[in-house]
Amino acid sequence: MITKPVKQLLLSIVGPENYDDSKVECLVYSYDATPGYQAMPDAVIKPGCTAEVSDIVKVCSEYKIPIVPRGSGTNLSGGTCPMEGGLVLLFNRMNSLLEIDEENLTATVQPGLITLDLISAVEAKGLFYPPDPSSMKISTIGGNINENSGGLRGLKYGVTRDYVIGLEVVLPNGDIIHTGGKLAKDVAGYDLTKLMVGSEGTLGIVTEAILKLIPTPETTKTMLALYQDLDAAAQSVAKIISNKIIPVTLEFLDRPTLVVVEDFAKIGLPTDVEAVLLIEQDGPLEVVERDMKRMADICLEEKAVSVEIAETEADAAALKTARRTALSALARLKPTTILEDATVPRSEIAKMVRAINEIASKHDVNICTFGHAGDGNLHPTCITDARDHDEMERVELAFADIFAAAIDLGGTITGEHGVGAMKAPYLEWKLKKEGVAAMTAIKQAFDPNNIMNPGKIFAKESRKRVVVSS
Amino acid sequence: MITKPVKQLLLSIVGPENYDDSKVECLVYSYDATPGYQAMPDAVIKPGCTAEVSDIVKVCSEYKIPIVPRGSGTNLSGGTCPMEGGLVLLFNRMNSLLEIDEENLTATVQPGLITLDLISAVEAKGLFYPPDPSSMKISTIGGNINENSGGLRGLKYGVTRDYVIGLEVVLPNGDIIHTGGKLAKDVAGYDLTKLMVGSEGTLGIVTEAILKLIPTPETTKTMLALYQDLDAAAQSVAKIISNKIIPVTLEFLDRPTLVVVEDFAKIGLPTDVEAVLLIEQDGPLEVVERDMKRMADICLEEKAVSVEIAETEADAAALKTARRTALSALARLKPTTILEDATVPRSEIAKMVRAINEIASKHDVNICTFGHAGDGNLHPTCITDARDHDEMERVELAFADIFAAAIDLGGTITGEHGVGAMKAPYLEWKLKKEGVAAMTAIKQAFDPNNIMNPGKIFAKESRKRVVVSS
Repeated sequence: MITKPVKQLLLSIVGPENYDDSKVECLVYSYDATPGYQAMPDAVIKPGCTAEVSDIVKVCSEYKIPIVPRGSGTNLSGGTCPMEGGLVLLFNRMNSLLEIDEENLTATVQPGLITLDLISAVEAKGLFYPPDPSSMKISTIGGNINENSGGLRGLKYGVTRDYVIGLEVVLPNGDIIHTGGKLAKDVAGYDLTKLMVGSEGTLGIVTEAILKLIPTPETTKTMLALYQDLDAAAQSVAKIISNKIIPVTLEFLDRPTLVVVEDFAKIGLPTDVEAVLLIEQDGPLEVVERDMKRMADICLEEKAVSVEIAETEADAAALKTARRTALSALARLKPTTILEDATVPRSEIAKMVRAINEIASKHDVNICTFGHAGDGNLHPTCITDARDHDEMERVELAFADIFAAAIDLGGTITGEHGVGAMKAPYLEWKLKKEGVAAMTAIKQAFDPNNIMNPGKIFAKESRKRVVVSS
Repeated sequence: MITKPVKQLLLSIVGPENYDDSKVECLVYSYDATPGYQAMPDAVIKPGCTAEVSDIVKVCSEYKIPIVPRGSGTNLSGGTCPMEGGLVLLFNRMNSLLEIDEENLTATVQPGLITLDLISAVEAKGLFYPPDPSSMKISTIGGNINENSGGLRGLKYGVTRDYVIGLEVVLPNGDIIHTGGKLAKDVAGYDLTKLMVGSEGTLGIVTEAILKLIPTPETTKTMLALYQDLDAAAQSVAKIISNKIIPVTLEFLDRPTLVVVEDFAKIGLPTDVEAVLLIEQDGPLEVVERDMKRMADICLEEKAVSVEIAETEADAAALKTARRTALSALARLKPTTILEDATVPRSEIAKMVRAINEIASKHDVNICTFGHAGDGNLHPTCITDARDHDEMERVELAFADIFAAAIDLGGTITGEHGVGAMKAPYLEWKLKKEGVAAMTAIKQAFDPNNIMNPGKIFAKESRKRVVVSS
């Protein structure tokens, strides 16, 4: 609850044009891209600078008001749903690309900057910012940092955390700290930079970031391998890596996903095969050509029914765009699309795909699977209808089984989407009580009043894991 | 102080053959590779497994006994000196390479494993573990993890933290936690893996680690560029990077360092030039050859007096070995060698080298400089004599000035050696009060009794920074 005097304090910081507690505005920010999560904030606030963020946090700290920092709300774990009300803090006014430093290969950015705008701006200078979440056309860098976003290029280039080397952060007490810098190496104390990345706004508010850039690869080639057998596709993934080729992208789509993506994107994708691998390599031309040839041979040895290298850049772009639209395409089928991201060691991909199919059939739910096979990061996606309570219960049981299967294979409950509100009850399955306790200790040390994005990562109660003896 | 009953408890955990509180053993472990730091432990203990480590920690937690985990003690920041007595915990019995997983490209290791033994073992399988601290012949992986060790290949490949993807850790309360896994992506809560790396044994004891491996580069070439002008060498570094070439290694040695290294290694290094750059590139042959040619051209454009590519692998190895022996070579000159690692954005290297020379001359001390120029990570090294109290005071003032200069250039007090006991009084210069407070909060949350390597990272009192108006 924001009382009148507190509202006055907040208005005095940002001005009336940047504070909105109207019902319509609050409704707009009551949910994010995650189905099934909605809660009304008390107000929406738009600070213009770090000092204003610090002043807002000080007020919230004094009056115990929850704060939910939010970029474009594209996350898929309920990470920006204001579960306990309070302020939704937007970065629309803090969205500048402050600097591209070509000597140190860094970009300095504000959190509200759109990911693709950053990528395009550095590309224009021959530089490369690899993390490319599928939502990059609308997602913000601040959101990417809070969620430690991955993307299609993660296999070769890593994820957002690997590219954040310095941060300005407003802590829950209002302190402004600076971590790291334009530095290739820095061991002055604990690595708060990497700790903040992926902390889902629960430890502080990122107000500026220094990102590492790398030279743009000279060439990129894209290839599609078709399979009539899921195992053969998974086996190809394992064999490519164990042959010591690390492609940029090694994506998997099963037939149900292919069918809807083709219906949506109409680029001539095959819909009569069981699975495809979308493979991309970049680097110097001669290396790319050699790697593509070797990977094509491996896929054929592993019983791909056909392998095709995109002839033109337009063809390659169409393939990648099709993959990026998988979620949107699937979302057209039924009212509710729940996309998960259980992740396993890449050697376990085949077992995981089989487990997902068995679980879907056991619970009688409709699950399509696609994702970053090279990372072991699959996106089993359930096409359902939130209004069908009986089915929704089965969907939830199916996802619980999927998380359990991933953990049994040495994996994790989330590879790149974050824990948020959605997976908080399952966190203990991965970390055990002791691991959750260690994380809780950090949370309490930073945010004793629990005002920073409360209700995320840590659950009031963990789900019991039902272990069925087989 | 370890009382008789507590000693009995510890003996019952590890057996009498793995516990030693004799004066001679305690003296051996009273210091590490850092000059000027010595303190007697109460005993030395050698656990044989994780459960024993946990039991030891529980006893220490109950009786408030400090624990200092120690590999080979090669650190240069007093990081393993038992400042407040207690137990030195050795990993001689936990030194196995448990697994090399060729499908997932990981190695699973115990902390006592020697770094070079790991590197050699994975190389035999065509895999590559890049972090290569100069001490790698004797340093342990556990020590590398605690210190987040860098090395000569850091510019292209990053540091230890970039290769640790899973840990088993005994927390100060005796809890055993598992972080990460054989996973390319994992966002299940805070990144405790990266937090533990570089925490200098102050948050817990690493008992097992999963390390990421990459394919071995096909070729490596090494080149030496000679300069009569320090600025020209620094300028070459900046120009190579801004031309979007990222070599594996880009090392700088000044003339005083060259003279002693040549005297020590006798491989025909030039001693009549002001500086050399040792440059290495790896990758596919055609790319390496192209990059070497382009870098040679850049060096010559920037007034290198000569550029020479090593003809044979033996020649290249000799050059790298010479660089790795810089510390040992310098250590022969005078009784005390203090090696620092102030680090700046790489664009500021020339300014930093000039600042170091001015500071040395101002305080009338003898400083040689070498280091990882491509990372902005220099090692100004003072050749002195700890028994000369007057000179030691000047040395300390000089290093304080060097830290201040690094910070003024956007840098940090330590790039790869850690804070330890040595740089604790300077930490606040980099992080400000607020940053130190945030780190202290984590330390207190994990280790409320301050038993884990006490006296490191956090100083009882910070040095006042003397700002001279210029």
